[in-house]
Amino acid sequence: MKFTISRNLLMNSINNVSVAISSRTAIPILTGMKLQITKEGLTLTGSDSNISIESFIPTQTDETINIENIVPGSIVVQAQYFPQIIRKLPENVVHIEVDDQANMSIRSGKAHFTLNGINAEEYPQLPVVTDDESFTIQTDLLKSLIRQTVFAISVMETRPILTGVNVQLNDSTLTFTATDGHRLASREVFLQDTTITIQSAVIPGSSLNELYKILDDKEETVKISLTNNLILFKTESLYFLSRLLDGKYPETSSLIPDEQQTMLHVNTQQLIQTVDRAALLASRDRNQVIKLETKDNNVIEISSESLEIGEVVEEINVIEHSGDPLQISFSAKYLHDGLRAIESDEVRITFSGSMRPFVIRPNNDDPVLQLILPVRTF
Amino acid sequence: MKFTISRNLLMNSINNVSVAISSRTAIPILTGMKLQITKEGLTLTGSDSNISIESFIPTQTDETINIENIVPGSIVVQAQYFPQIIRKLPENVVHIEVDDQANMSIRSGKAHFTLNGINAEEYPQLPVVTDDESFTIQTDLLKSLIRQTVFAISVMETRPILTGVNVQLNDSTLTFTATDGHRLASREVFLQDTTITIQSAVIPGSSLNELYKILDDKEETVKISLTNNLILFKTESLYFLSRLLDGKYPETSSLIPDEQQTMLHVNTQQLIQTVDRAALLASRDRNQVIKLETKDNNVIEISSESLEIGEVVEEINVIEHSGDPLQISFSAKYLHDGLRAIESDEVRITFSGSMRPFVIRPNNDDPVLQLILPVRTF
Repeated sequence: MKFTISRNLLMNSINNVSVAISSRTAIPILTGMKLQITKEGLTLTGSDSNISIESFIPTQTDETINIENIVPGSIVVQAQYFPQIIRKLPENVVHIEVDDQANMSIRSGKAHFTLNGINAEEYPQLPVVTDDESFTIQTDLLKSLIRQTVFAISVMETRPILTGVNVQLNDSTLTFTATDGHRLASREVFLQDTTITIQSAVIPGSSLNELYKILDDKEETVKISLTNNLILFKTESLYFLSRLLDGKYPETSSLIPDEQQTMLHVNTQQLIQTVDRAALLASRDRNQVIKLETKDNNVIEISSESLEIGEVVEEINVIEHSGDPLQISFSAKYLHDGLRAIESDEVRITFSGSMRPFVIRPNNDDPVLQLILPVRTF
Repeated sequence: MKFTISRNLLMNSINNVSVAISSRTAIPILTGMKLQITKEGLTLTGSDSNISIESFIPTQTDETINIENIVPGSIVVQAQYFPQIIRKLPENVVHIEVDDQANMSIRSGKAHFTLNGINAEEYPQLPVVTDDESFTIQTDLLKSLIRQTVFAISVMETRPILTGVNVQLNDSTLTFTATDGHRLASREVFLQDTTITIQSAVIPGSSLNELYKILDDKEETVKISLTNNLILFKTESLYFLSRLLDGKYPETSSLIPDEQQTMLHVNTQQLIQTVDRAALLASRDRNQVIKLETKDNNVIEISSESLEIGEVVEEINVIEHSGDPLQISFSAKYLHDGLRAIESDEVRITFSGSMRPFVIRPNNDDPVLQLILPVRTF
């Protein structure tokens, strides 16, 4: 086995598959990174019990030669050392060669590393996902779906199904939903060319966070394929496989109130900053509960107090206040997260009473919403 | 008590005194920050058992008014909340007012905070250091003295005196020395206008690290005053008081070898990078021991190996190699630290045998040296 490659290209692939490799795994060989070189290109593989990632570097991209001097073969090297070595090599050209005893030689400039490897035949085969059930989505849309929902998953293991994001596809509408029982985030996207239906597939939030990090904005589309218990995200150079969570995701659509007693149309940044200030004195133990109260003339007051520390009160002008006067308490952290995730300069917040969930929507027609449950403070 | 000030000016002072405030202290009031406003300006104070810091903002700097609406007074506020509140205020103008019950009101824009304070009379008086024994040094020189030595202090509490930097002043020459028993860093500076003598004053390394962080490069000089057990660093706006370490600092001058069997004149950056690569495979448990071996024609070889991981070897060209051939092992970390601290593009390393300490000096006449003890590997 032998090849010559650019350090920067190789490092990029290493970074992508590294996120799947854990030093704590029940299967020792999975602490390693697999390299397979063929005439077509170099495939790197990393895997743990939840996700598996393959990153592919083609021998040639258009007119550019990426890899030279290829003698096909494969090996597994220790993921604790291999990435650090490649990162610190003195020159951009890297010569890699593996002998019959699975010793990898890495040469760059005058530096020469020898790294003990493991025979690649011992590395487990990744499961095969057919593309019978698959659809294609723009990379930036997929990243929005993840970014606007995944933060709202539960971090508690008491209801494992809530640590995932629920994916549904009906009538060409793809929906991502996440909730921890105290708040809910939901985002929809219309997919033109899709006819398949997904009742419910729950992807671990941790998998989506890793996928988000390594999805390359230069890739235009992602192909998503599903089996019973696996989901595959595939681009030109990336193969990202995650297990799905077992169990039934709760019905969430009934949580969103139809009625509206009070509506606030506000500047998002201004509200975020005021909420952050009020959160400074709110107790962290109780998720930083703050109070919102409507005043006359399109003014609202945000406040919080703590006997030991002190109190804070701030008035802000809203763009519009319609409906009933309101006094409501809630977690500053949840409101902050929800306002940010809307990704709109102005938002509309609709309330249906001080003990009912309230809903944040953008001031445009984007199909994204954030729902937050209030906190009883009296 | 009352005053109006710019948030940015206040924040800068808060950051300076915050480094002295610990949330874990035997004296509860020291978890707070003291503010004292007079017609002359605002003084902030923070203190723990090791250091005390005062930061002063004058009412007026040249033509610029810094503080207005002054009603003199003082108060202690909780250092866990006050800095965060000031940092997040909506506008740059801050109105602060304290009532008879030690409640501090902070107003900026439409935000209004009330913070429970403590009567400043309960705050301990800082010790007074007279300037009988004092000298003045340029700020940038003092920062060099700290930067080039403090990293070499011991982090082990077995010999507490080695956790400090030894300061000596003789014949107008100021010397900072630090050693952990395996390496030594020393830097001298000539002070023109000083006649006093300091036999030995050992400043805790942690105090110097904090001082380094907050010393403002805009201040031209620092006045240093000493008493039996305290050292005071004073600038226009800063008053930094540290306790000195008790005990006798070991005699270190005899450690530096006079003789020279081998000399290497090398490019600093090139050697640092090669050492860092060799360190990748060197065991962390033994301070990353690597090997240096001289070859013919001004070439040296740096290598390290680990049975479990692999090996690395790299040759580099040196500018000059004179004297005997040499084979020596030492900590890659110590060599890296020493090479960086010399702050010179080229260095001269002089050896007097493979089991004797070696010395790194810059290629110019700067009075700085780094001494490293080798490691026996056979």
